[in-house]
Amino acid sequence: MIALTKYAPPVQVTRLKCEICGASYPHGNLYTCSSCGDEGILDVEYDYERIASALSKSPLQDRDQNIWRYNELLPVSADIARPRLFVGWTPIYDAPRLAKYFGIKQILLKDDGRNPTNSFKDRASSVGVLKAIEFGFGEIACASTGNAASSLAGLSAATGLKSYIFVPERAPEPKVTQLLIFGATVLRVLGTYEQAFELCKAACEKYGWYNRNSGVNPFLVEGKKTAGLEIAEQLNGNLPDWVVVSVGDGCTISGIGKGLQEMKRLGFIDRVPRLLGVQAEGARPIVDAFMSGKDLAPSETKTLADSIAVGTPRNWRRAIKQIRLSSGEMIAVSDDEILEAMRTTARIGAVFGEPAGVTGVAGLKKAIESGVINRNESVLCVITGNGLKDIQSAKQAAGQALDVNPSLADLATALSNHVN
Amino acid sequence: MIALTKYAPPVQVTRLKCEICGASYPHGNLYTCSSCGDEGILDVEYDYERIASALSKSPLQDRDQNIWRYNELLPVSADIARPRLFVGWTPIYDAPRLAKYFGIKQILLKDDGRNPTNSFKDRASSVGVLKAIEFGFGEIACASTGNAASSLAGLSAATGLKSYIFVPERAPEPKVTQLLIFGATVLRVLGTYEQAFELCKAACEKYGWYNRNSGVNPFLVEGKKTAGLEIAEQLNGNLPDWVVVSVGDGCTISGIGKGLQEMKRLGFIDRVPRLLGVQAEGARPIVDAFMSGKDLAPSETKTLADSIAVGTPRNWRRAIKQIRLSSGEMIAVSDDEILEAMRTTARIGAVFGEPAGVTGVAGLKKAIESGVINRNESVLCVITGNGLKDIQSAKQAAGQALDVNPSLADLATALSNHVN
Repeated sequence: MIALTKYAPPVQVTRLKCEICGASYPHGNLYTCSSCGDEGILDVEYDYERIASALSKSPLQDRDQNIWRYNELLPVSADIARPRLFVGWTPIYDAPRLAKYFGIKQILLKDDGRNPTNSFKDRASSVGVLKAIEFGFGEIACASTGNAASSLAGLSAATGLKSYIFVPERAPEPKVTQLLIFGATVLRVLGTYEQAFELCKAACEKYGWYNRNSGVNPFLVEGKKTAGLEIAEQLNGNLPDWVVVSVGDGCTISGIGKGLQEMKRLGFIDRVPRLLGVQAEGARPIVDAFMSGKDLAPSETKTLADSIAVGTPRNWRRAIKQIRLSSGEMIAVSDDEILEAMRTTARIGAVFGEPAGVTGVAGLKKAIESGVINRNESVLCVITGNGLKDIQSAKQAAGQALDVNPSLADLATALSNHVN
Repeated sequence: MIALTKYAPPVQVTRLKCEICGASYPHGNLYTCSSCGDEGILDVEYDYERIASALSKSPLQDRDQNIWRYNELLPVSADIARPRLFVGWTPIYDAPRLAKYFGIKQILLKDDGRNPTNSFKDRASSVGVLKAIEFGFGEIACASTGNAASSLAGLSAATGLKSYIFVPERAPEPKVTQLLIFGATVLRVLGTYEQAFELCKAACEKYGWYNRNSGVNPFLVEGKKTAGLEIAEQLNGNLPDWVVVSVGDGCTISGIGKGLQEMKRLGFIDRVPRLLGVQAEGARPIVDAFMSGKDLAPSETKTLADSIAVGTPRNWRRAIKQIRLSSGEMIAVSDDEILEAMRTTARIGAVFGEPAGVTGVAGLKKAIESGVINRNESVLCVITGNGLKDIQSAKQAAGQALDVNPSLADLATALSNHVN
């Protein structure tokens, strides 16, 4: 049931603006543009003078190390208590051995698998649950290939919201288990991701649930933006030449791009790194649209990187806009290259990412080899999800244990037969 | 092969002292006491006057938020570069809904599943890999039910050491996959944990590998100590009445106790919280020794909490000593209680822990119900490992997804049949 909200709206938000026709809407419980329909995603615009003034009075460096340090840049009422499940400010590791292996000046890994439910999506869900509360909802729903779901379930548990999650049949079991244990009601839709998405949307309308889907909800990408804000702040003075991100729906890379642009506008950085967006060969509609300059053509999907297996990405316009704004590039990689990146990132970079989590690393390797990225450049790869989320894929990449009886003689035989 | 070390020893370490006979040894590449054998675990002692002086010149609050902020309290040469894979300073969440559910004043959850390889053991392995490097080793080994192994594999990948891991047959597949992907050579010993432990020890002697086993290695518990140091520093001024920890080998709780005692000695806190050590009913030899006052009697093990399924715990003396020093208690819980704690901690506390990771929460509930802990007291539970590490157990606790065809009518039927 929908209750009337008792919270003041976020004063720093000036309007919501349609990405296609430019129509303006005041802040409110809106999804997409009423003229342009589902494709008319609304972008949140801010009063940057007010924000600059607030940040000069309470400087960032004195604040808690989680996404709420960027309160003024997030579209959430100041009246609502932030969840105690701290999200963001994930570590950035310098990986000199990985840089040497790839033959490039510097590789930094930002490990977003270290978020509370182990993926980047916690950033978006944090904003989603607070917007639901702000608008007076007691229930929240989403359709997700997995990570948005588990993060929504976790953040709902942290805030006391009831969550309904629509997952496609192919969602990996660890992800489904993760959201069940957080108490979500899980609807496994016997169909594709797109069908799960549409059923979720219809159910939200029918039952009066808040819709967290980042493909239509204007506020979610603002949570994702915090990774861009963090990169600018954490690496201030030592910004990489490139930021590499895996791309499914297009929401993550457009959020990171927006965050970086905002930090430039606020004077924290003097340039925005070039964005490299990486899709899987088996789900590359945004790469194709980027290359052709034409509108997006939906595609079938076939890749083990389930988190970015999106045939009808909703945020392709925003993604391409942010990539072009940064003078960036796009590239696609095969599943074999993704599995190799899982191995390389873990063995040499010491970070275990899920397939979509390391797709950026696979794209980085290809971009270096093809000359898109120069060997004297520096890059930051965002690892968007923890490898424990998809053990079946990891098993394909990982190799085998050696079975031994408990004796030194047996051990010696096993080791001598083993080629590492 | 063993090379001669080129590093200066850690000046803050005064000696290693046998926990049984009190014999003193100078700092060096030692394991247990030469008189007392395997049971004579050596405790690292420090020059606290030197440490207090160093901390007054470079205060803790100005330092990086990872375990190396406590450099002077760790037994590692100052000359060795710390791994970039930042470990520790895990968040402490206030969980008021969980406290209300259990009927107690305050529950804090310290989520050590947010370490780089998703468990508490990263604290110990960080020290382990640096001691291997300090002593001139290129290879390091351990026997582990899982978490010590994956953390050693991850930290070895971060530092370029070659790792050999001995796991018992029953180690869950996600944990084995996690360490394989980090590039470890994994020996699955067709036998018990104890047989894996002994084979690892013999192999270290035969092949000249550094032995990371925290049951014999005096330095590992010092890494675990950092959780106690953090609790004191993070909650300074608002210390809980109790700190609750699951107990397998006894190393984790003795480390946390030691860290808290050190922070009291250095004047950061004025009292040490009481320790509640919790074992599984199916692996409770330390609880029995604590209750009876007698020496430990090894037992068979039968519990789904594989990380604490230790029939012959090596650190039982230190564990009991630290618990008594804090005026603490011990308790044992059933597997059903552990599964219930997995659900409760996730659904109400918003943290998804593995079985051993939430065994402390199960013990807390029992301790409240039996009056060991009063309802007007505050507690901190250390969640020692992420639930994604053992999805099979989580499935037992989590419940089921609802299968639906992609239609609102089907959805309505599924929801109306569903009792959440």
